[in-house]
Amino acid sequence: MKEEFYNYIQNLQLLITRELEKVDGKSRFSNIKWKREGGGGGVTKIIENGNIFEKGGVNISNVFGELPKTMKDYLNTKYSLFSACGLSLVIHPKSPLIPTIHSNLRYFELYNKSNVVVDQWFGGGVDLTPYYIDNFDINHFHKVCKISCDEHDKNYYNIFKKNCDNYFWNKHREEARGVGGIFFDYLKPNDKSVDELYNFVTTVGNNFLNSYLPIVNKNKNVNYSDKQKKWQEVRRGRYVEFNLLHDKGTQFGIKTNGRIESIFMSLPPTVRWEYNFQPTKNSSESELVGVLKKPKEWI
Amino acid sequence: MKEEFYNYIQNLQLLITRELEKVDGKSRFSNIKWKREGGGGGVTKIIENGNIFEKGGVNISNVFGELPKTMKDYLNTKYSLFSACGLSLVIHPKSPLIPTIHSNLRYFELYNKSNVVVDQWFGGGVDLTPYYIDNFDINHFHKVCKISCDEHDKNYYNIFKKNCDNYFWNKHREEARGVGGIFFDYLKPNDKSVDELYNFVTTVGNNFLNSYLPIVNKNKNVNYSDKQKKWQEVRRGRYVEFNLLHDKGTQFGIKTNGRIESIFMSLPPTVRWEYNFQPTKNSSESELVGVLKKPKEWI
Repeated sequence: MKEEFYNYIQNLQLLITRELEKVDGKSRFSNIKWKREGGGGGVTKIIENGNIFEKGGVNISNVFGELPKTMKDYLNTKYSLFSACGLSLVIHPKSPLIPTIHSNLRYFELYNKSNVVVDQWFGGGVDLTPYYIDNFDINHFHKVCKISCDEHDKNYYNIFKKNCDNYFWNKHREEARGVGGIFFDYLKPNDKSVDELYNFVTTVGNNFLNSYLPIVNKNKNVNYSDKQKKWQEVRRGRYVEFNLLHDKGTQFGIKTNGRIESIFMSLPPTVRWEYNFQPTKNSSESELVGVLKKPKEWI
Repeated sequence: MKEEFYNYIQNLQLLITRELEKVDGKSRFSNIKWKREGGGGGVTKIIENGNIFEKGGVNISNVFGELPKTMKDYLNTKYSLFSACGLSLVIHPKSPLIPTIHSNLRYFELYNKSNVVVDQWFGGGVDLTPYYIDNFDINHFHKVCKISCDEHDKNYYNIFKKNCDNYFWNKHREEARGVGGIFFDYLKPNDKSVDELYNFVTTVGNNFLNSYLPIVNKNKNVNYSDKQKKWQEVRRGRYVEFNLLHDKGTQFGIKTNGRIESIFMSLPPTVRWEYNFQPTKNSSESELVGVLKKPKEWI
């Protein structure tokens, strides 16, 4: 399963970066291979200063070896040998009319001393962070999420949508990071086989471009004002706050001495903190804040 | 002591903001009074979009009541009644040739159920975050720190300078936030009386303008390039990383539901994260990084 999944995300990384390059028409993804002390490595692919994409990363990694102590405590396990592979992406478009998107797909295995798999699970999800509310776009995004789920389990979408709203909650601001999507973890073979879980997770991966590209293409040629760009930069501040204060992946990467530049590829290119910035009442900016304060059903 | 110290920092806030306004010549500090649920409040004074100061805050607060649980655990105390007052300032100049400065002066009291003081201490310090190394300026800053210390205890400067280097360490980057200064905490009346400690802490406060204004005035009319401004914004990213990932004050403010906009006044106005940004070898930008990687003696 490990080889099959890593093979899958290698191909997915190539597919997604190729399609995003086509849409961008200017910048190309860099290709940085890195090795991990202790076992494994990854491929970091970064795009910067594009026509459409101001900054983005589509990274894969395949690491294994002794479980770092912080991670062993976190997983609350007696086993010390692990293997983890995953794809992680964050895309920050230049235009404030195109949402930021984040996705993660990962597979984890734990082994006993005889190298036999004793535990295995999938995790991941996909979520959208717009700067303006476009019901049509958000609805489209959630519909694709639901389609990915429904194909495998009619209960998935409701559960994973709620998970997502709970996880991407900027507690210190009492608001969501974005308009959610789906988020799942510890998907273990139980009533479903590991192959069925693999099929679900790869469906989410296969539908990534379907969920995002129509939104990008619809908005990429629409003009925006300096005021809208500034609003995007203020909101990107909230993205930074979530990732540095609350995101488990980031905290974890730092605590386990992960590759800082790969972890921080998620941080937006230009960001703004103004003192007590408040959008005008009844503006489209305040409409966004209203939606984020109270996550809603999109379908 | 509590009234005396709060009275002192009220006057210091007025003095510092008045003098910074004079230097800036354009923007004025706003004046926001706020109350804390549970007891006390403060005065937040913010300057934005000045000639010299792009963003800055000089805040005071005087809070008291029941110790929040997180804080009680942190202080590891059995007492539940507290009072804390302090001044906290961060100044982000527009020019990358003028360093960012941060200072904090605070006084804490714990009481038993009969409202008798059972513990009391001072904390605080002042530290400098330049974007370029100007040995003359940094030397001047550390000299003023040393003068403040030496007047009260010949050992203070060495100890508090080391404290400062240790505290403002961006562990995940293996580099200091800036070039340090002095940092102290839990200064309790022991071999020194509470009045002697008050005299030390207020000397640090009184010398703030002496330590900073000559640096501002020397550099405020020097031209800088877009490249230097961009470098400042990249480095400001490290300031954000420290404050959100490592700073105890920020973590604490958030955990105890402090006033978010007052806590985050410390965040720089415009910030930049580029993937794996590395300064050119032997440039003045790489000189800064070299100094931050290995904190040095300035006197």
